[in-house]
Amino acid sequence: MFMRIDRLQIELPTPEEADPNAAAALQELLGGKYGEMSTLSNYLFQSFNFRSKSKLRPFYSLVANITAEELGHVELVSNGVALLNNGPPEEDDTADGGDISGAPYEAMKDVRLAAAFFSNAGGAMPMNSNGASWNMDFVTTTGNVIMDLLHNFHLECGARLHKLRVYETLTDPTGREVCGYLLVRGGVHAHAYALAIKKLTGVAIENMLPVPNINLDKIPESQKYLEEGSHRRLYRFSTDDYKEMAGIWGKGEKALPGDPPGELEVVDGPPDGGKIPELEGAPSAFTPDYAPEEMFEIASKLYKKSR
Amino acid sequence: MFMRIDRLQIELPTPEEADPNAAAALQELLGGKYGEMSTLSNYLFQSFNFRSKSKLRPFYSLVANITAEELGHVELVSNGVALLNNGPPEEDDTADGGDISGAPYEAMKDVRLAAAFFSNAGGAMPMNSNGASWNMDFVTTTGNVIMDLLHNFHLECGARLHKLRVYETLTDPTGREVCGYLLVRGGVHAHAYALAIKKLTGVAIENMLPVPNINLDKIPESQKYLEEGSHRRLYRFSTDDYKEMAGIWGKGEKALPGDPPGELEVVDGPPDGGKIPELEGAPSAFTPDYAPEEMFEIASKLYKKSR
Amino acid sequence: MFMRIDRLQIELPTPEEADPNAAAALQELLGGKYGEMSTLSNYLFQSFNFRSKSKLRPFYSLVANITAEELGHVELVSNGVALLNNGPPEEDDTADGGDISGAPYEAMKDVRLAAAFFSNAGGAMPMNSNGASWNMDFVTTTGNVIMDLLHNFHLECGARLHKLRVYETLTDPTGREVCGYLLVRGGVHAHAYALAIKKLTGVAIENMLPVPNINLDKIPESQKYLEEGSHRRLYRFSTDDYKEMAGIWGKGEKALPGDPPGELEVVDGPPDGGKIPELEGAPSAFTPDYAPEEMFEIASKLYKKSR
Amino acid sequence: MFMRIDRLQIELPTPEEADPNAAAALQELLGGKYGEMSTLSNYLFQSFNFRSKSKLRPFYSLVANITAEELGHVELVSNGVALLNNGPPEEDDTADGGDISGAPYEAMKDVRLAAAFFSNAGGAMPMNSNGASWNMDFVTTTGNVIMDLLHNFHLECGARLHKLRVYETLTDPTGREVCGYLLVRGGVHAHAYALAIKKLTGVAIENMLPVPNINLDKIPESQKYLEEGSHRRLYRFSTDDYKEMAGIWGKGEKALPGDPPGELEVVDGPPDGGKIPELEGAPSAFTPDYAPEEMFEIASKLYKKSR
Amino acid sequence: MFMRIDRLQIELPTPEEADPNAAAALQELLGGKYGEMSTLSNYLFQSFNFRSKSKLRPFYSLVANITAEELGHVELVSNGVALLNNGPPEEDDTADGGDISGAPYEAMKDVRLAAAFFSNAGGAMPMNSNGASWNMDFVTTTGNVIMDLLHNFHLECGARLHKLRVYETLTDPTGREVCGYLLVRGGVHAHAYALAIKKLTGVAIENMLPVPNINLDKIPESQKYLEEGSHRRLYRFSTDDYKEMAGIWGKGEKALPGDPPGELEVVDGPPDGGKIPELEGAPSAFTPDYAPEEMFEIASKLYKKSR
Amino acid sequence: MFMRIDRLQIELPTPEEADPNAAAALQELLGGKYGEMSTLSNYLFQSFNFRSKSKLRPFYSLVANITAEELGHVELVSNGVALLNNGPPEEDDTADGGDISGAPYEAMKDVRLAAAFFSNAGGAMPMNSNGASWNMDFVTTTGNVIMDLLHNFHLECGARLHKLRVYETLTDPTGREVCGYLLVRGGVHAHAYALAIKKLTGVAIENMLPVPNINLDKIPESQKYLEEGSHRRLYRFSTDDYKEMAGIWGKGEKALPGDPPGELEVVDGPPDGGKIPELEGAPSAFTPDYAPEEMFEIASKLYKKSR
Repeated sequence: MFMRIDRLQIELPTPEEADPNAAAALQELLGGKYGEMSTLSNYLFQSFNFRSKSKLRPFYSLVANITAEELGHVELVSNGVALLNNGPPEEDDTADGGDISGAPYEAMKDVRLAAAFFSNAGGAMPMNSNGASWNMDFVTTTGNVIMDLLHNFHLECGARLHKLRVYETLTDPTGREVCGYLLVRGGVHAHAYALAIKKLTGVAIENMLPVPNINLDKIPESQKYLEEGSHRRLYRFSTDDYKEMAGIWGKGEKALPGDPPGELEVVDGPPDGGKIPELEGAPSAFTPDYAPEEMFEIASKLYKKSR
Repeated sequence: MFMRIDRLQIELPTPEEADPNAAAALQELLGGKYGEMSTLSNYLFQSFNFRSKSKLRPFYSLVANITAEELGHVELVSNGVALLNNGPPEEDDTADGGDISGAPYEAMKDVRLAAAFFSNAGGAMPMNSNGASWNMDFVTTTGNVIMDLLHNFHLECGARLHKLRVYETLTDPTGREVCGYLLVRGGVHAHAYALAIKKLTGVAIENMLPVPNINLDKIPESQKYLEEGSHRRLYRFSTDDYKEMAGIWGKGEKALPGDPPGELEVVDGPPDGGKIPELEGAPSAFTPDYAPEEMFEIASKLYKKSR
Repeated sequence: MFMRIDRLQIELPTPEEADPNAAAALQELLGGKYGEMSTLSNYLFQSFNFRSKSKLRPFYSLVANITAEELGHVELVSNGVALLNNGPPEEDDTADGGDISGAPYEAMKDVRLAAAFFSNAGGAMPMNSNGASWNMDFVTTTGNVIMDLLHNFHLECGARLHKLRVYETLTDPTGREVCGYLLVRGGVHAHAYALAIKKLTGVAIENMLPVPNINLDKIPESQKYLEEGSHRRLYRFSTDDYKEMAGIWGKGEKALPGDPPGELEVVDGPPDGGKIPELEGAPSAFTPDYAPEEMFEIASKLYKKSR
Repeated sequence: MFMRIDRLQIELPTPEEADPNAAAALQELLGGKYGEMSTLSNYLFQSFNFRSKSKLRPFYSLVANITAEELGHVELVSNGVALLNNGPPEEDDTADGGDISGAPYEAMKDVRLAAAFFSNAGGAMPMNSNGASWNMDFVTTTGNVIMDLLHNFHLECGARLHKLRVYETLTDPTGREVCGYLLVRGGVHAHAYALAIKKLTGVAIENMLPVPNINLDKIPESQKYLEEGSHRRLYRFSTDDYKEMAGIWGKGEKALPGDPPGELEVVDGPPDGGKIPELEGAPSAFTPDYAPEEMFEIASKLYKKSR
Repeated sequence: MFMRIDRLQIELPTPEEADPNAAAALQELLGGKYGEMSTLSNYLFQSFNFRSKSKLRPFYSLVANITAEELGHVELVSNGVALLNNGPPEEDDTADGGDISGAPYEAMKDVRLAAAFFSNAGGAMPMNSNGASWNMDFVTTTGNVIMDLLHNFHLECGARLHKLRVYETLTDPTGREVCGYLLVRGGVHAHAYALAIKKLTGVAIENMLPVPNINLDKIPESQKYLEEGSHRRLYRFSTDDYKEMAGIWGKGEKALPGDPPGELEVVDGPPDGGKIPELEGAPSAFTPDYAPEEMFEIASKLYKKSR
Repeated sequence: MFMRIDRLQIELPTPEEADPNAAAALQELLGGKYGEMSTLSNYLFQSFNFRSKSKLRPFYSLVANITAEELGHVELVSNGVALLNNGPPEEDDTADGGDISGAPYEAMKDVRLAAAFFSNAGGAMPMNSNGASWNMDFVTTTGNVIMDLLHNFHLECGARLHKLRVYETLTDPTGREVCGYLLVRGGVHAHAYALAIKKLTGVAIENMLPVPNINLDKIPESQKYLEEGSHRRLYRFSTDDYKEMAGIWGKGEKALPGDPPGELEVVDGPPDGGKIPELEGAPSAFTPDYAPEEMFEIASKLYKKSR
């Protein structure tokens, strides 16, 4: 089972302006082959299909727990996409009596993924930066523990490469913050799978890291997370379970050479995180709907009733 | 953010025998158009993309909270699939010195979705009962609250229909239990979205329920859940959040006519649930791997280290 | 614009028994690369996108008119699929008080395309015999008249080959009748496109026919259609339009050598056709719904009101 | 069976200039999840697969008849796409001896859906505004009448939302006219399915309309259709059949509150419609082909022969 | 079996500047329905599945041999795509100590197929100009020799049309050279399949050529290939095999009317070809990787060891 | 460029009987995520897109050369599929006057992938064992050498796992021979990529092999290939090129522990291989066509002309 907390894993800055093509770029990190839908779904289905869970508990716990973090990554990138598509809060003067007949969204027909406006009003979707759907071809769950861990290690390396490239195309602080944070966390996951492989096979595959061969000190947006030691922490996203992963990620294991030094640690519970961004409605795009006042009033009454 | 609990939403009975075609049938409830991947992903992305969250809090909370329950439904069906594919625990005499050259899995080439053995060793995948991948064409997130709620209501009705039909093909208790439980919970979600629509539009759309027109007293496996009142409960899958949905599902609202009577209620926290099933390894299928003893021993040492 | 007539192009025999795998075979002729969805959609979009319609009127008329016949082919194969999936009318004793808890549809989990039961209750869908969706990769509309006609000629040859192979797997009279008729009509379309190509290029491409190299006198179910001269007739599926195609298919042109001799002719209006089959409801599969009496009564009243 | 009339449902204005990105926007209304290919195919396959047709005649007739109108909608949007891609008639001086070596279509490599030029010369295709193919994942045909009608109601609401958003991006009169008309007709279909649901379930679901919550008096291009009462009319696209739908849409039922008042009526026969637009050939793009004179001359002779 | 030669079929000019949208256009010729992946895969699988190879040797040899040439076409277009995406060699000052934090690839978020940068660093992929994947729906292999040859003839005509249109959008010499050469070779293949059809059916289908109706004397980039007689040559891409195709393409057969005259001939062995282009690494895009010097040094040592 | 040799990489035994479900199983090794189409296409596009080829020559040569071997693997599996679908040569008494009206292929409607008969007459296609198409989602080409090599290593491990499982379902010698050989060759490729990674990163990743953890001495069909040393050989599929890969795979490197010992070596030229299987025509399935005698006679004359 899963529980939900109404917080993002980090606080996201407000975008400076709407930039649908930047949002489309960020979609690569959501629904691309090496995006968060892929990391999430690989680990989710691997954890469901895991064999001999009781006998391989530390390995099962590692995969099962990272799954929960990936849900939050999907949430984080999705919020980034929605923010970049919609930009900072704006007055929408077409609401309630305004005139929508003057092609108020003419600009939308020229953005790279125009269907994101027509179908989703700029919301995030499980697709890549070319608009191609995420699908099960991106999921590997073989039941063979070595094969699955090796796959996951390669997946996190691929994810890091794509995050770096997306980062290099973005100027808006919202998208850059998403990348800066996920680069740190993706590094943790690559490191963790490497350690799991080493425990089982003896191959010191973590010595290959980082892939690509660039340290995160080159990425300004990653610094505050490195400083707080995020690269050494595996959050345990569970009240009571998955403690056994500390057998793999824990005492005696060190941060990778290019990162700030220190010992690896399992942290009980999620990070503090940041607030879920408020997406302003755009009545002229029928979100939450044209002439929303009545809707807000109903909600206000129901809210009072719920308390 | 999301947290994880190492429990299923219910206790699943052990299957009587391996039945890959029954597992394939259950896949419809996982990756079909009206399957759990669809309900999960619709609500997940709708919650990310929700407009005017603060002003429409009860509606946002409803969608966001049901998302968390759906994650557990994906988990439940997936475990059902894996159990039905693999059957009850068996001795695998090909491990460690056994002979795999005699086509020990000859039967697998004739099962409906043979790739489920080749690629996934009988694990669950996000695909339907014909092996077609789940994809974003099954996701509706428009930013328009009425449209999204109406979609969700129709989605839950479709899900109920498909669950009934899958149920009618299954004889094994594992698959039937999955259906019996999900029929009750799907009914709750359809009812909840109907109430949300009624609050906003005044249309008493819940009077259309049940769709299809059959009460759950016809389904033996649903009875214990009806008796405990599951059909009147919306679990709040969060420690602190989403309480506002009680403005929609709560005091003053009653169970639907064909179900045991009583008042609707929001229950704080998840159901007790049942244990995660142990999937035995099948060394001859290289799960967790051929000759697993060394692997188990390593895991055992790491487990001790983690305590 | 299009008008509809509540008749099939031919009278279909009632199936002798339900045979979902035969229905699945027939799906190849509906949603396969060379199926009726493909012939329909190629000609439909070619007719929309046709250049210099007024100057190339006979060619435009030919394509536009055959489109209308193909709609009826899609209808014919779809009805064949639904009949074969459902079999002859049967008593369904689970309606109104019956018991559905005994896995009444257990057999459905082992049919080749089980999702056709779960999702469609045995109805037809735009997919091929492996359950793969029809899609736009099967549509060619280039705006180049020679290229499009050449494509269409090849398409009809491919369709004939696939119809012959599907026919060779069927024993039930329903499916065989569908094939027997469509083989004759497909032959007409191949011949018509060949003549169009010959008019424009001088190449007597119709001399290549039939592809494959087998005459329809080998197919018993085709005989009555050959006897009535269907192979020499292009039906004009329009009250007033498309008469210009008679410049291509008409006086002076003869039937192909292996078929009964005679002159080609444009026939004004559709064939007499046969009645639309009645698909019995199966209340236990929730079609039209569980306990249908009330529904029938409402319909009966509305019917009276409509007169 | 289906008949064809060589007329569009309305007269379309000539586009002011070629605007391939506007054409791409309009593709959302053709091949998107809520586009005309979806409405057409849902009703088409539902009508084929309809159970107990004779006992539920008014409902069957409604679905079967609207199918025929949707064919005309697919035609209308497709013509709109082709017009917007190609723009007003122009002299093409590369024909017959002109020079094509100077990259005459350089601009085409930068349009959003460049393959629409390469493959289709600007013709319409069954794809959405991102170039993703329409496919069977967009078709719901369950055999359960309530479920299918509920689906159709939600589908028409979704279609209305997407039409409004596409409209808001277009400045050219051709695309705006397509939207203005289809908004009226889509409203009729949503209303009709609502009434059908109300007859069967008693739920006054039409009170939810319009979704989104905006009346068509805000859309200038819809006015002439509202004035002629199109929003109160269900055209019967058949010479002899489908009269029974008047039991659902007819005497005693009124126009929706926000629209011009009046009684609902079934109109026998199609609307007058407008002429099929002539798409000029572009010899430099090999449509109908390079150096078309000979082709036109052949066609002219065949035309004479056909009279 | 297949052997490889480290040469392109022609020498490609260096591009004048990076033009990702031109590269995207060229992708139509790689992964479009009528692109090189399609011609390759059709002939590849037809050659594997060919029936009665020994009795139909000249036809088998023709298909099997052209397959090998198509591999080189896939290679040629792919190199063209990579060159156009990356442009002429440039200094990359972010390598080794440079700063990548200033969005050095900001321009990439606005190119048509941005995923080509994120995932492939501008490399070629088996997709079309809209980013849609090549797939098996583009493969026809029926086992019927006439049907397959007819399909291949139509395929080469379609390929020629698309090559002409892509050519008309390109200004850079790299892409134009690719088109100029492939137009000549595609003409040879269309002609060859036409002759094969004529031998078997007696239909002089080559008289329909060229499709579209434009001779290659209109394409400056094709002239040098016409002058060397490439349009009359079928290269035998094998040391010892496939000589039997000379029964179809050879003595007594002439070049098509619009091309320079001469007799058709089978040439033993491949064309001289040109050098494989060197794609410069872009360390800032992590190709071959950030800070490549160490990598180059390792390779240099291994190179010496290999000699 | 590529050359072709009319030989398979090994001699395949004739199948004992037609077994379409076994052929369908083998399709997993052709078009599955870890099948030969994937290995081929990954290395093919990586070799096209390789950066700094001249400076990283040993690595480029390794990838480019293995590509050529993979083409032969695609050919080998495809021939295996076609043989298993069609079985040993048989008299087909429906040819030339025989009767095809008695449903001679009734059995085909019940095989797992019936479309393989309808569309391909039992020929191979680029799809997996569930009939899902191979597509570009299975291709990774990032331009980053470490990432691509790591991907390739994981891909070969996955391929080995899937080959083992397919092998375990097959009883016919044809399919088992295909698996037995490819297991040896896949082992070579995994080992080769491991060595390449080790040279660049220092990580002894080959110590992880074999994945899964089973030596090939358990597979009888692999023995003759192990005995001839195939596991120590990298064939150089080129007359003059790719010699530099000997810097990675060559002197000083040893066979993996579980395999027969010896030094690794590059062998110049392809293996001897075996003859291409003759697939008998089945006139009743219209291959090469109904009544093939005339076709054979034409071919015989053309063959004589070619000598």
